[in-house]
Amino acid sequence: MYAVGVDIGGTKIAAGVVDEDGTILAKTRRSTSPDDVASIDRAIAEVYEEFRGDYEIGAIGVAAAGFVSNDRTTVLFAPNIAWRDYPVGEKVRALIGEDVRVVVENDANAAGWGEFRFGSAKDATDMLMLTLGTGLGGAVVVDGRLVRGRWGVATEVGHMRVVPGGHYCGCGHQGCWEQYASGSALVRDARAAAVAMPDRAAALLALAGGDHDAITGPQVTSAAQAGDPLARDLFADLGRWVGEGAASVAALLDPELIVLGGGVADAGELLFPSVRAGFERELSARGHRPEARIVAAALGNDAGMVGAADLARVD
Amino acid sequence: MYAVGVDIGGTKIAAGVVDEDGTILAKTRRSTSPDDVASIDRAIAEVYEEFRGDYEIGAIGVAAAGFVSNDRTTVLFAPNIAWRDYPVGEKVRALIGEDVRVVVENDANAAGWGEFRFGSAKDATDMLMLTLGTGLGGAVVVDGRLVRGRWGVATEVGHMRVVPGGHYCGCGHQGCWEQYASGSALVRDARAAAVAMPDRAAALLALAGGDHDAITGPQVTSAAQAGDPLARDLFADLGRWVGEGAASVAALLDPELIVLGGGVADAGELLFPSVRAGFERELSARGHRPEARIVAAALGNDAGMVGAADLARVD
Amino acid sequence: MYAVGVDIGGTKIAAGVVDEDGTILAKTRRSTSPDDVASIDRAIAEVYEEFRGDYEIGAIGVAAAGFVSNDRTTVLFAPNIAWRDYPVGEKVRALIGEDVRVVVENDANAAGWGEFRFGSAKDATDMLMLTLGTGLGGAVVVDGRLVRGRWGVATEVGHMRVVPGGHYCGCGHQGCWEQYASGSALVRDARAAAVAMPDRAAALLALAGGDHDAITGPQVTSAAQAGDPLARDLFADLGRWVGEGAASVAALLDPELIVLGGGVADAGELLFPSVRAGFERELSARGHRPEARIVAAALGNDAGMVGAADLARVD
Amino acid sequence: MYAVGVDIGGTKIAAGVVDEDGTILAKTRRSTSPDDVASIDRAIAEVYEEFRGDYEIGAIGVAAAGFVSNDRTTVLFAPNIAWRDYPVGEKVRALIGEDVRVVVENDANAAGWGEFRFGSAKDATDMLMLTLGTGLGGAVVVDGRLVRGRWGVATEVGHMRVVPGGHYCGCGHQGCWEQYASGSALVRDARAAAVAMPDRAAALLALAGGDHDAITGPQVTSAAQAGDPLARDLFADLGRWVGEGAASVAALLDPELIVLGGGVADAGELLFPSVRAGFERELSARGHRPEARIVAAALGNDAGMVGAADLARVD
Repeated sequence: MYAVGVDIGGTKIAAGVVDEDGTILAKTRRSTSPDDVASIDRAIAEVYEEFRGDYEIGAIGVAAAGFVSNDRTTVLFAPNIAWRDYPVGEKVRALIGEDVRVVVENDANAAGWGEFRFGSAKDATDMLMLTLGTGLGGAVVVDGRLVRGRWGVATEVGHMRVVPGGHYCGCGHQGCWEQYASGSALVRDARAAAVAMPDRAAALLALAGGDHDAITGPQVTSAAQAGDPLARDLFADLGRWVGEGAASVAALLDPELIVLGGGVADAGELLFPSVRAGFERELSARGHRPEARIVAAALGNDAGMVGAADLARVD
Repeated sequence: MYAVGVDIGGTKIAAGVVDEDGTILAKTRRSTSPDDVASIDRAIAEVYEEFRGDYEIGAIGVAAAGFVSNDRTTVLFAPNIAWRDYPVGEKVRALIGEDVRVVVENDANAAGWGEFRFGSAKDATDMLMLTLGTGLGGAVVVDGRLVRGRWGVATEVGHMRVVPGGHYCGCGHQGCWEQYASGSALVRDARAAAVAMPDRAAALLALAGGDHDAITGPQVTSAAQAGDPLARDLFADLGRWVGEGAASVAALLDPELIVLGGGVADAGELLFPSVRAGFERELSARGHRPEARIVAAALGNDAGMVGAADLARVD
Repeated sequence: MYAVGVDIGGTKIAAGVVDEDGTILAKTRRSTSPDDVASIDRAIAEVYEEFRGDYEIGAIGVAAAGFVSNDRTTVLFAPNIAWRDYPVGEKVRALIGEDVRVVVENDANAAGWGEFRFGSAKDATDMLMLTLGTGLGGAVVVDGRLVRGRWGVATEVGHMRVVPGGHYCGCGHQGCWEQYASGSALVRDARAAAVAMPDRAAALLALAGGDHDAITGPQVTSAAQAGDPLARDLFADLGRWVGEGAASVAALLDPELIVLGGGVADAGELLFPSVRAGFERELSARGHRPEARIVAAALGNDAGMVGAADLARVD
Repeated sequence: MYAVGVDIGGTKIAAGVVDEDGTILAKTRRSTSPDDVASIDRAIAEVYEEFRGDYEIGAIGVAAAGFVSNDRTTVLFAPNIAWRDYPVGEKVRALIGEDVRVVVENDANAAGWGEFRFGSAKDATDMLMLTLGTGLGGAVVVDGRLVRGRWGVATEVGHMRVVPGGHYCGCGHQGCWEQYASGSALVRDARAAAVAMPDRAAALLALAGGDHDAITGPQVTSAAQAGDPLARDLFADLGRWVGEGAASVAALLDPELIVLGGGVADAGELLFPSVRAGFERELSARGHRPEARIVAAALGNDAGMVGAADLARVD
């Protein structure tokens, strides 16, 4: 059975027809408005119409950045799109006019499920996925099942507290993991280093035209790839926080695999060695237990689409 | 079907016949030696013999403080008993001489399962149990299933790191949760307060004969119950760490219920208000989500026996 | 002998004739431009001309926010005024056309000296003054002598590190004391509390028109004075950081008096009890040593003017 | 004028005749008992008798580990010797039977003064000395004068708090600098590393006979000198804490020279580079100010004797 996976972004959706092996057979896109939620419903209906002529579609899976109701039909709250208790499934079905199954899933969960079923974790039973983008998201699979939590809001990994009294987070709390393990943290630290240690930050400042507030994530990556010691240290620090935090999650959940995705994880060897070193240094009961492997995500931006499609089909 | 639940302590075992409703129909005890693991096998076989005349026993569940193999037959490692890759199930069956099912389970998992099935969480589907004793243990149930992890060593909650560079733990790491949320932490903090603030610690010092190193947990409890401000603050601090750490776990797992057990939790109202306040203050996305309730365990010391028996039967 | 004390602000100067008892006999003001440092020289010369007809002036003391050279003639660097290695003394003398003594002093040092000689610390020999404004400044007197340091840049108390890896400071470092003990810290914490705990912050949010980013320091003070629990807690936290940090300075310098000045210190009883509690709790070797008293500054905004005049006169 | 300098240890005293250039002309020792304070008085009187035949002695300076009264005649409290408000000067004079000047000084102050007058800081006016032994002591000279504080208990540098909620100290507080920057801290961290990372600690464990609790400071030094990566990291961490803490003191006092003494400082190049790196990284307003140099103490164990003699003479 084919399913359509839809990945909802801020100003566009990406959709694809996905088969039972996780292969994307066709892809398309539509522009949408984050303030006009009906525009999103229409776009989903349109892509369904576009695909149904060529493929027999059994279900639509929608990956959305937000809290999703337990029955996976409604977005309860989304930070960047105007969904508030919005029954996406019902709305889309009404536009389509037939009884196709529409399942909504948190986007990080969908991406994690994609990796679990068809990507880096396809041979695993217990996985922690961490998505390092602007913030820090993730997904957890325990014994083959996606963890959604009692009310569907599990796996807010980025808001686990790792430093009491630490950096303030946009959520109003202090010391959230994503303040230490995300692209935003990388840029903030780079800018501060440029103020405190302008000599050491000369390469970064040159890339940013001399203005520490203009330093960007891609500049840090570029400097690090060119061997700049400060930029490399910034990635190593970031990696350390990823790995050390992952060790705490591993103490709780004992996963066999930790998958790192998101744009920051593309830094690859700038990041992974320090992630592994931080994880090993902080893992409880080392030597008395097997250790999770830490690997890169395999599906890139398609993970959400593929995972959403599969979740719509299999459960 | 009846099952025998066996709770293995350092120098004795407690065993009981448990029915399918979690009711203990009979109880007994045997002395054992932690250095002579065969003495534990014999004691288990003896209690089985004692019970089998009066009850039809279908399975034996053994709750053991240690890492247990995935197939739940073998203790891989125990900190306080000389088990090293020790096949408890096979040894006991050999002594009994018949093919009764023997299932070994981590003791915190067994106690958590007892509370989940028959105690404070019997109406819940997703639970975090925290056991506040000398150290900090726990158990997690997700969507009705006990989380054991890929290699059976999940739910080492006490070794999640809550303070980078914090107090050293016996495990060699720093900042483990149990260094802030356990009876040992309470006593350590009480003693330090008595050194730094002898005036404020006058009541505690009086109970300890004037020697700060002689302050004990029961003395702190007693002083707190009598209204001593320092002792009450010590419990409030402890509760705060329990609640704040639980908020991080809730960000990850979204449980509906947090159950507090163990001897320290008996402090009741000295502890629970600050646990709840700490949890609420640190819970991510408050107001956009339902919140877990925080309740006391109901089964006391029987939880492990009841849970082990049930786990032996049902899975 | 009379001396003129001049307090340099961002857009104006305040000047006064000060006698040897620290009494201000006359006061005046001039507007200036922070980008036109000559405008400041001219304003100082003008106020001198204004006063000299009525008073016999022996010296001019200039209090300036910035690093001052060892010989107290030159501002090496100022964050908010365009002084860079600027010989204020020489420039003013050239305008005046006579050989009056012109002494430049760091403004926090001048204010501290004013309090030491004529204000709250006039009977003390060893003082720590902390000025709680937007940031955290201070002054130290050891055995009757103002501590300027080897290169004149001592008493940057606000940039002592109190939390490794703590809040970022405008200086590029992390965990500077002024990120925890200043008016800016108070407002930042109030805004974050309003995001994380909107219910608890209802009173503050009402004052700020519902926008957490619009919360101001005076609103927090006003809410605290009206008894709002959150606002009172915010002041108590601030006071705790002031007192705990002061305990570290006291371990180093053993002052007899700690004087709190600056706008935030006007909060008085909202602040002082928690400052004292924090100081007492963290003071090393309590019980084996006398303890510094913690008092409010007495001279208000005149402290800098009076202190600068006195420093110009007495050396 | 010659003076006798006496360095009081736990079970012996060392004394010497010191000239005005800080040269030791003669040395001797006596055994004493820490519980019998009169034995110390007698030993001081004896060494004076021994020296007076050959040298014209004008004063006796006594360096004592403890709090000393403002008039420098009395030890108020000592942690390791049974002095409690004990008038050492008067007692010694009574034994000697003549009116020689006897001046008592805190031992860290005496050693710091020795370095300031005749050792590494002899060309400086403003010095911070840090003595890295079992604990962390120090001395401060501001503008050529030793800082004793209002009540003589200044420069308890080891008990400045550098980590809120950090490691417990014997003083009952948490996060004292000496818990991070001392020989005890080095050993504690080495032992913990051996528990958490036995593979990485193989060299250290081999030196300690396989028992992590048997690891000593000299073993860590020896392993570090032989290039062991863990031992080198432990020294680097220690150095970092020394340097970062020194940066906070420098923000307060602006010294021109930081002198490192004590047994741990003998580690030399294992320690100093990371001290300097930590200092530079955390120093406030770098680039806008000259920076203190960081150098090794020059006088070794004689510093206290020489300094005490000089302090007895000059003031």
